[in-house]
Amino acid sequence: MTSEILEEIKKTIVQRLPERVQVAKVEFEGPEVVIYTKNPEIITENGDLIRNLAKDLRKRIIIRSDKSVLLDPEKTIDKIHEIVPEEAKITNIYFDEVTGEVVIEAKKPGLVIGKYGVTSREVVKNTGWAPKILRTPPISSEIIERVRNTLKHNSKERKKILQDLGTRIHQGSKYENEWARLTSMGGFREVGRSCMLLQTPNSRVLLDCGVNVAGDEKSAYPFLNVPEFSLSDLDAVVISHAHLDHTGFLPYLYHYGYEGPIYCTAPTRDLMTLLQLDHIDIAHREDDPLPFNIKHVQKSIKHTITLDYGEVTDISPDIRLTLHNAGHILGSAMSHMHIGDGQHNMVYTGDFKYERSRLLEPATARFPRVETVVMESTYGGHEDVQPSRNNAEKQMMKTIYKTLKRGGKVLIPVFAVGRAQELMIVLEEYMRHGMIEEVPIYIDGMIWEATAIHTARPEYLSKDLRDQIFHMGRNPFISESFHKVQNVNERKDIVEGEPCIILSTSGMLTGGNSVEYFKWLSEDEKSTLIFVGYQSEGSLGRRIQKGWKEIPLKEEGKTKLYNVKMEIKTIEGFSGHSNRRQLMEYVKKLSPRPEKVIMCHGDAYKTLDLASSVHRSYKIETKTPLNLESTRIQ
Amino acid sequence: MTSEILEEIKKTIVQRLPERVQVAKVEFEGPEVVIYTKNPEIITENGDLIRNLAKDLRKRIIIRSDKSVLLDPEKTIDKIHEIVPEEAKITNIYFDEVTGEVVIEAKKPGLVIGKYGVTSREVVKNTGWAPKILRTPPISSEIIERVRNTLKHNSKERKKILQDLGTRIHQGSKYENEWARLTSMGGFREVGRSCMLLQTPNSRVLLDCGVNVAGDEKSAYPFLNVPEFSLSDLDAVVISHAHLDHTGFLPYLYHYGYEGPIYCTAPTRDLMTLLQLDHIDIAHREDDPLPFNIKHVQKSIKHTITLDYGEVTDISPDIRLTLHNAGHILGSAMSHMHIGDGQHNMVYTGDFKYERSRLLEPATARFPRVETVVMESTYGGHEDVQPSRNNAEKQMMKTIYKTLKRGGKVLIPVFAVGRAQELMIVLEEYMRHGMIEEVPIYIDGMIWEATAIHTARPEYLSKDLRDQIFHMGRNPFISESFHKVQNVNERKDIVEGEPCIILSTSGMLTGGNSVEYFKWLSEDEKSTLIFVGYQSEGSLGRRIQKGWKEIPLKEEGKTKLYNVKMEIKTIEGFSGHSNRRQLMEYVKKLSPRPEKVIMCHGDAYKTLDLASSVHRSYKIETKTPLNLESTRIQ
Repeated sequence: MTSEILEEIKKTIVQRLPERVQVAKVEFEGPEVVIYTKNPEIITENGDLIRNLAKDLRKRIIIRSDKSVLLDPEKTIDKIHEIVPEEAKITNIYFDEVTGEVVIEAKKPGLVIGKYGVTSREVVKNTGWAPKILRTPPISSEIIERVRNTLKHNSKERKKILQDLGTRIHQGSKYENEWARLTSMGGFREVGRSCMLLQTPNSRVLLDCGVNVAGDEKSAYPFLNVPEFSLSDLDAVVISHAHLDHTGFLPYLYHYGYEGPIYCTAPTRDLMTLLQLDHIDIAHREDDPLPFNIKHVQKSIKHTITLDYGEVTDISPDIRLTLHNAGHILGSAMSHMHIGDGQHNMVYTGDFKYERSRLLEPATARFPRVETVVMESTYGGHEDVQPSRNNAEKQMMKTIYKTLKRGGKVLIPVFAVGRAQELMIVLEEYMRHGMIEEVPIYIDGMIWEATAIHTARPEYLSKDLRDQIFHMGRNPFISESFHKVQNVNERKDIVEGEPCIILSTSGMLTGGNSVEYFKWLSEDEKSTLIFVGYQSEGSLGRRIQKGWKEIPLKEEGKTKLYNVKMEIKTIEGFSGHSNRRQLMEYVKKLSPRPEKVIMCHGDAYKTLDLASSVHRSYKIETKTPLNLESTRIQ
Repeated sequence: MTSEILEEIKKTIVQRLPERVQVAKVEFEGPEVVIYTKNPEIITENGDLIRNLAKDLRKRIIIRSDKSVLLDPEKTIDKIHEIVPEEAKITNIYFDEVTGEVVIEAKKPGLVIGKYGVTSREVVKNTGWAPKILRTPPISSEIIERVRNTLKHNSKERKKILQDLGTRIHQGSKYENEWARLTSMGGFREVGRSCMLLQTPNSRVLLDCGVNVAGDEKSAYPFLNVPEFSLSDLDAVVISHAHLDHTGFLPYLYHYGYEGPIYCTAPTRDLMTLLQLDHIDIAHREDDPLPFNIKHVQKSIKHTITLDYGEVTDISPDIRLTLHNAGHILGSAMSHMHIGDGQHNMVYTGDFKYERSRLLEPATARFPRVETVVMESTYGGHEDVQPSRNNAEKQMMKTIYKTLKRGGKVLIPVFAVGRAQELMIVLEEYMRHGMIEEVPIYIDGMIWEATAIHTARPEYLSKDLRDQIFHMGRNPFISESFHKVQNVNERKDIVEGEPCIILSTSGMLTGGNSVEYFKWLSEDEKSTLIFVGYQSEGSLGRRIQKGWKEIPLKEEGKTKLYNVKMEIKTIEGFSGHSNRRQLMEYVKKLSPRPEKVIMCHGDAYKTLDLASSVHRSYKIETKTPLNLESTRIQ
């Protein structure tokens, strides 16, 4: 059947393209249609041709050259260096023989593309190779290198994966789309292990697949044993953002035989790889291994299809996915699902911030259509009114200013991904403007690597940051104020040295180097510990926040008592989540107005509180399903 | 594994029974454990022995004789006639060689059993054969004969079915019972196609499997395509009562490969067989055949396990079923489901009447435990206040009295199962007491057969009727006032003859002989048409009820206009459903008080109306799921 569809598409393509274009082969590659031609230059020079064809076919189209017209690799490299200006700073060129792509890694990828793509088209015309242009991050990233290598070394396998996937996606709907529903598999009336299954008569799509890192055996993982879930029936997994409560259980799916795709943004892929590997590592160190390993993270990478915001993609016979900015962390996305022939449209917000932050633009609230919204309710309680961002920053600066002035050090325990980078931008800005003293800002633990990933994806940052980076040529992340902490000795030098600011994981002092810094600084009256994130019950952070003055901690196997003499400060308002007001405002501003709002990702009472407020204020039907419940959306 | 469990059970049995009892074999037979012994008399004479054993094992136990001690059949027949008194009126004796049972059909089965079972024990002692005693109905029933024959001729196959089933039921729970949920597959926020799936980590049980006879292609059948439903995973089907909106799609399951059991009361099995066969017949005549045929009804019969009210039965590794009287029609049952080791108890009411009727006792409202109730809401609207039964009867009598007095005939179109028998009892009673004239009551169509089934199961009737039948020896169903209409000619004689009362199907004049009677009588000013049931929009009954005076109807291929001159009367209050007040009262009286009430079987607004009233009045959580939704009950 599929080959019939493919034949049909090929026929249309041949009919529509000018006769002189020789179509050698047409293939599915995941959601895309790839045309191999002997005259790629004709097509690439006439952009409208492809745009119109794509519109007619309602498919995304990629043009590549037939093997017969590919220039010899050595000569291609020379040609590329000839065509691309030196300022682009190419760092690497390699070839994907399977697809006919040449990968060009450069510090300034924009210059490899050229104005309106003129430079990259020149490459095609002169070499036949289709250029795939990647940014060389200004801070080198192990993870990005790992991801790129994985894809490079498994090109053939990936091609096969994508072809099989294409076959499934384009096979057409077998049943009428008379209904659609959502099964809550985790993260409903709770925070952690976010996971839900979208079902139509023709497809099954999993949205997020997280863990609850603080959960016990029964509450750590989503309910994959819900009767309607079967790995072999699954069409796709869509990931909202990289945090482990949304991605931590993904490798498990591949461990247990899932062979289908993951859809997410490129930064989400990279950041979740970082977090998943770290999770495996910690579990291993704590002698409590996870039910999967590095191999399965690797397998996830091979099966991930990255999408940019706004890119419309078929992910199953009757579901079309578009990701939109969610404003929560780098690459975080709202998933817009268009079901059937417009029968229904659903938006899953994932975690989102409906306010401009230093790092990101506020979440999208306008969609072409939307009937059902599944939204987070982390701060959905009526009491969840955090101070404004502006206020929070002012408090932060005042505290740092005072501490540095009295010769103290500032320790900020922080989550590696998201909040850390937000703070880095704030600190860099205030320091640059002389509002706090210029002291070294030490970046310890995974934060550095997460920041490197941020520098590889500037196009996902706020307009303000993009302006700084692209137009003013100044990237705050590579400011000289930031210092990567390399080893234990250095840490000792830092705590014994001059006033400084230290950002270190973990954010709740539940392990990692933040605890070590605390041990060193706790008795120093001049220094300050600033909490910027939620401290969960039972964590060391929580105890200190509560005002405990004597803290017993293990030191080289023995328990030692630490007297807390340093200043302890909690500053709210740096959250990546919308507060109560912003959640309500978001529903109000949603355009078009949805018919139904389903609440997830919040403690039970906050979920219920928000649902009842939305219902009362806006007369919109709200639902607060439990885990393991299925709710009709259409 | 199972044989291990069986071995274990056998060991316990051998230990507990006196040494002189020789246990030859222990087998599962569906939910029961069968002990084959060479000395059945020892056990049967000591009832406590088995009762205690059953209690210890928490299983139902049956005693049968080992083949070696069975008396020759011919001699057994003689022996039985010797032991059983002649007044028992034995009509048939036959042997089930597979099980070692002797089936004794008698007009007075109580006399075959004897006081405290003394007579039937005598049979065991003298012949070795375990007597299975069936009532010979005073009105002969084709359906009952058909069912008994089916079971008789497929004894070996049935034994195999039951053994396989036993294996599955007793295999023990594989997973912890941390949740239970219910998927709505049909009949939620609507009336018709009742069907729901109860799921636990260890089992899947379908409750009812009906059709909507008035539905189109999309609304006629339950959503068997819901992702969590799979015929091969299904442990059991439990049927609340015989009406087609609860049983009409059952044969389809067997058509598509279901091999598991159906649990229901014996009258439900017989009545649903009647209705299913009739449904197939009508569909065939209307040239719109159903997606199954008689073979599959036959297969259903072979897979049905009948339960009496109050009989506790394991139907899956973690679900224990008990049926209770629902008061709706003969054999109608509420299903009490005990899940796991008491983790949860759910009651599905099916259709029920919480008021004593002529025919039946009111529905049970006391259960050992109950956390969730799934209840019907047919008359759940606050406007659904029907007149009392007493009032309805008075109106009926007045109307009949007047009509007969003026020399007219009374035509009552009525559903064959339930309401017809209720009216028969009322009419017989009033006629016997001289409150209406003694005229023939003609019983036309399927009503006669349905009544025959009622006479086969007097133990399911109201206490009042049972008293009449068992103690006063007077069965109102076999009153001489009732006349079975045999053929067309007879019908003509009836309408042209003396004053009389005619009960005929269909109840809404949508076909069947009631339409023919109407044609004959419509222009007779002296006669009366009485509606006693709901007339659905679009039916002929509805049009007449609305007051149409000219009715075009097909007569021998041509359309003829009928002038309605006969009196038209609607009498409410004979419904088999609880009215609004009774529904509310039922929830109030439920003992123990449930935590959650889920509404089904009602038009959307009635379902919502009742749910909100129950919530407001009793502060019990209520749910009104849509079809295709899954709701947590635990």
